[in-house]
Amino acid sequence: MKKIAIVGGTHGNELTGIRLIEKWMKNTTLVARNNLDVELLYGNPLAIRNQVRFIDEDLNRAFHVDDLNNPPGESWESQQAHRLNKMLGPKFNNPSVDVIIDLHTTTSNMGNTIIIYNEPFNMKLAKYIQCHEDNVRIYISDKKAEDTVGLQSVAPHGATIEIGPIPQGVLFHEQFETMERTTYHALDFIQAYDNAPGFDITGEIEAYQRGVLIPYPTDESGKICAMLHKDIQNKDYCLLKKGDPMFITFSGKVMHYEGDAGFPVFINEAAYYEKNMALRMNKKIMLTIPPRDRL
Amino acid sequence: MKKIAIVGGTHGNELTGIRLIEKWMKNTTLVARNNLDVELLYGNPLAIRNQVRFIDEDLNRAFHVDDLNNPPGESWESQQAHRLNKMLGPKFNNPSVDVIIDLHTTTSNMGNTIIIYNEPFNMKLAKYIQCHEDNVRIYISDKKAEDTVGLQSVAPHGATIEIGPIPQGVLFHEQFETMERTTYHALDFIQAYDNAPGFDITGEIEAYQRGVLIPYPTDESGKICAMLHKDIQNKDYCLLKKGDPMFITFSGKVMHYEGDAGFPVFINEAAYYEKNMALRMNKKIMLTIPPRDRL
Repeated sequence: MKKIAIVGGTHGNELTGIRLIEKWMKNTTLVARNNLDVELLYGNPLAIRNQVRFIDEDLNRAFHVDDLNNPPGESWESQQAHRLNKMLGPKFNNPSVDVIIDLHTTTSNMGNTIIIYNEPFNMKLAKYIQCHEDNVRIYISDKKAEDTVGLQSVAPHGATIEIGPIPQGVLFHEQFETMERTTYHALDFIQAYDNAPGFDITGEIEAYQRGVLIPYPTDESGKICAMLHKDIQNKDYCLLKKGDPMFITFSGKVMHYEGDAGFPVFINEAAYYEKNMALRMNKKIMLTIPPRDRL
Repeated sequence: MKKIAIVGGTHGNELTGIRLIEKWMKNTTLVARNNLDVELLYGNPLAIRNQVRFIDEDLNRAFHVDDLNNPPGESWESQQAHRLNKMLGPKFNNPSVDVIIDLHTTTSNMGNTIIIYNEPFNMKLAKYIQCHEDNVRIYISDKKAEDTVGLQSVAPHGATIEIGPIPQGVLFHEQFETMERTTYHALDFIQAYDNAPGFDITGEIEAYQRGVLIPYPTDESGKICAMLHKDIQNKDYCLLKKGDPMFITFSGKVMHYEGDAGFPVFINEAAYYEKNMALRMNKKIMLTIPPRDRL
């Protein structure tokens, strides 16, 4: 764990991470840690300049290893993914960066969420943050390594810090400070892990395991014909049971949830509308973190 | 008061009004009223399709009478303003529409705000809504008629229904219903006013008079170097006094308000960032509505 990249603006309209990167570029001592080489960068500079999430396609879905091992496509983000893979990776092929911390915001009421791939170091990192910061939830993706597509998958380890609710294009002072502190906790953990071979984080973690996306109801022409019901608005991480109100059509008909009970996240995320997606239905799980000396 | 236009999507990423127009187009009886000719339309269809506030410039600042009386400029919105002026106006020249109701949302915590130009009919309309709906505030612009630039200025009367906080590109069920009810109150008022010569709304109204825009602090290069302080976030319509915390620089220095006490609105509106504007500082005033028979 020697080289760390902190990335803001992987989505160009998520201002909080962008302004933090700017802040740290002006004062690198804030992110300097013993024996760590910390690199600061903007994920999608062109999208940032245009104040949009992306130019052609979502950059944070553009890091599939097959795509990276082929010449880039025509989209700006495919080309940017290749550039980032060259700088930080190459993915799965002795990458130059050990850990990627990717800073995101959401319009959903997700609080302070650490999103990680299921891997011992990431779990230790997430639990460390949870021990040092109130109201942190861990969101875990069980994807096989070869299926991963997010920016953080370019390095062997990493975490996405996802904070909401924050509208696109807006800065909230309180959440700015939360993201700043959370990033410092992440760096503090990596520093301790790197410098103190006896240091470890073990035990159990409660996590929300990435489940399926639930689409908005659509009419015959495929157009969204309902919105999320007010009873579910802001209820990210609250148990949703079969029969609970979920949507209401624009003409006023309530539609109830018909699936198995679960823990919805990314409820009413603005960026999901273009995909017709209303939320993601996660499961709550307990995971045991293996001790360092067994890895 | 015979012809009414209800407009959604004057800003293309304010979904609530857009979906309401869609709903009403499918079921026009909801907005039908005795002897009223109610027209439903999208303000900026190209911006709606692109899910952006505007293509080239803010449509809701494009209705200055001098601009409308000259050939349109090259921007999409200048051309769209001319088209709308032809359909609904011409402004100041025996316009075809008597009242324009324009549906907007804001990322600021403005609740349900009725924005009107200072004119007796508009005040009656706003007070009627306030009598029929909880927590409605009236925001009044004292601009001289020849200086007005908003879409609603194309007709002799009108109101903007401005509801927040709602992120751009997002629908909230509760606020959708609030905007729907508020529009119905407006139509009910116009119907009563038109059909019952003895019907009137008089007395006083408390209003927030449009004041100056307060910019974000900037550094030597003109770049925003601070965000709104958490103490002022969501405090739209709450008295801000000299010495109250207002901004905090990205490096953590609190900056205090130095002007005269006032009532901030549009605090942390996403669309104001590109203009470097943090909020607008309004004044609270009382106005007396002249009786109908004195107009």
